[in-house]
Amino acid sequence: MPLTINTPLDMHLHLRDEAMLHNIAKASSDTFSGAIIMPNLVPPVSSKEALIAYKQRILLATNDNSFTPYMTLFFKPSYDKIFLASIKDEITAIKLYPAGITTNSEEGVSGFDIEALRPALEAMSDLEIPLCVHGETNGFVMDREAEFASIYEDLASAFPNLKIIMEHITTKSSVDLLDKYPNLYATITIHHLLITLDDVAGGMLQPHLFCKPIAKRPEDRDALRKVALSAHPKVMFGSDSAPHPKEAKEACGCAAGVFTAPIALQLLAELFDTQDASQENLQAFISGNAQAIYGIAPTDKVITLEKTPFKVPSDYNGVVPMYANEEIAYSIKEIQTSQS
Amino acid sequence: MPLTINTPLDMHLHLRDEAMLHNIAKASSDTFSGAIIMPNLVPPVSSKEALIAYKQRILLATNDNSFTPYMTLFFKPSYDKIFLASIKDEITAIKLYPAGITTNSEEGVSGFDIEALRPALEAMSDLEIPLCVHGETNGFVMDREAEFASIYEDLASAFPNLKIIMEHITTKSSVDLLDKYPNLYATITIHHLLITLDDVAGGMLQPHLFCKPIAKRPEDRDALRKVALSAHPKVMFGSDSAPHPKEAKEACGCAAGVFTAPIALQLLAELFDTQDASQENLQAFISGNAQAIYGIAPTDKVITLEKTPFKVPSDYNGVVPMYANEEIAYSIKEIQTSQS
Repeated sequence: MPLTINTPLDMHLHLRDEAMLHNIAKASSDTFSGAIIMPNLVPPVSSKEALIAYKQRILLATNDNSFTPYMTLFFKPSYDKIFLASIKDEITAIKLYPAGITTNSEEGVSGFDIEALRPALEAMSDLEIPLCVHGETNGFVMDREAEFASIYEDLASAFPNLKIIMEHITTKSSVDLLDKYPNLYATITIHHLLITLDDVAGGMLQPHLFCKPIAKRPEDRDALRKVALSAHPKVMFGSDSAPHPKEAKEACGCAAGVFTAPIALQLLAELFDTQDASQENLQAFISGNAQAIYGIAPTDKVITLEKTPFKVPSDYNGVVPMYANEEIAYSIKEIQTSQS
Repeated sequence: MPLTINTPLDMHLHLRDEAMLHNIAKASSDTFSGAIIMPNLVPPVSSKEALIAYKQRILLATNDNSFTPYMTLFFKPSYDKIFLASIKDEITAIKLYPAGITTNSEEGVSGFDIEALRPALEAMSDLEIPLCVHGETNGFVMDREAEFASIYEDLASAFPNLKIIMEHITTKSSVDLLDKYPNLYATITIHHLLITLDDVAGGMLQPHLFCKPIAKRPEDRDALRKVALSAHPKVMFGSDSAPHPKEAKEACGCAAGVFTAPIALQLLAELFDTQDASQENLQAFISGNAQAIYGIAPTDKVITLEKTPFKVPSDYNGVVPMYANEEIAYSIKEIQTSQS
């Protein structure tokens, strides 16, 4: 029996820029109705001009009016209410990076002095601009997200009307915060629902599964699966699909990032199927929850999948996807847009 | 002031075979008086003929009578007392691998049924042949060694007169066993004294620091340092230096192993210096303890080091060492053998 997904949304996506943007944009725009676009370019997207220009470049690369790039700005504590009010209509959220914590985050926030952040965050709260957060400290790699929990708690308490999205959560400690603060939400990637550190470094070393936050323990993955498969209303799918050129990814000292955009829907269909989760929950996790949380209404796009094996290509325009050359149980059979 | 080390011993070494043996043998024989040679060739060294032939190949490759290869046999539960008595004079220990746990360990022990192992282990106990153990389960990568603790406890209790060496320990849980059972000993590598998982996967991914057991948490490294730097009488230096060709190590899906043989003494000198441990303890950790535990009397070799920077080469005959192209604070100034 075919499986249909309506208006799938990727609530955390790296589209990069220039040649890479053109190489991978359609991997998302073909199958998703929209995506939250991360602003960690070099330099980061932190002005209205840069944001509008980046959006234009994305629209040119995707060339598909059935796909909406939901733009984000790179958070800076210096943003004031006048600036934020002037840009509000152009953005869906603002993304906060701790300085130096991941790819192109050098200009992020150093230290978490709530008072220093208060003017910008209160303005965002007043203007109802959601805050997306990469929640890791600079501590030991397996503890970074759990150590960040107290910062999430401080932010959620200090700005109770600010919607705070804990991006790409990987730990039980983050899952446990969801029901503790009404204004905390989360995105979860497909790879963190599938792998643990064992898959990255338990056998041979697997650079294409190396990401930040790093995949954690089995009990963490279990906690993520529980809220994703039950479509907890505060969690949304966000792939964190992060392309790097094959040469860079397979070199000694490779960067973090897993490229999942072109196989995310197939993997989600397979996971929900093998774990006996309902199609209704899959729909909520991949679209409904995000629409409710962000208050967005993406263009209709209906993806029909069927349970026939799909062999993942070795690369997409020079970018190696997760599970390259391996088989997934689900294939995309048909894509219907409101234009078709 | 120069630092001298007498008759350094590497109580856990992979010399491999054929071309690789010739590429890396002198990296150990130049600076060590002897080393315990691991038997995980393909096929494993599990007969007297194979063992003697391998020893001859090593002697040919090192061509240095100031270096003694202390040979080990690959443990099989089928070894009986007659066989073991016949080979006793050729070996220094027998190495037990759980099946499939690391490089070339496919023919190791599956499951740990003490009764199935009893005949061989009792014969070893009677013949006073030490048992070296790679102590990892096939569980989650960060838990494998800690999960093996109960097997160490079972073995130590069941065979109280058998000397059991916990090889390349990486966790506080293993350190804690040392004072609990009189017949448990341990080797510790230089890389596990220096790095944690952060160094392997906390920044960019570093295949040349990827090993089995994988580097663990800061508190585990602290526990290892405590017993190594204080030269706990039951711990010995064992490099677990494990060469792989550069191409294999830097390929996607690389094997585990850190190549440290040519820089081990320099790194140990630097570590004991920066941690304010005594030269006496360094001497005990790198030679004295091993001589007492194994009852061996290696050939004299005096290594003089000095505190002048040493730039680690990019490779040694195609094998990339730990800290390639980086600087170590200590250099080897002079090597005196009883022949010189």
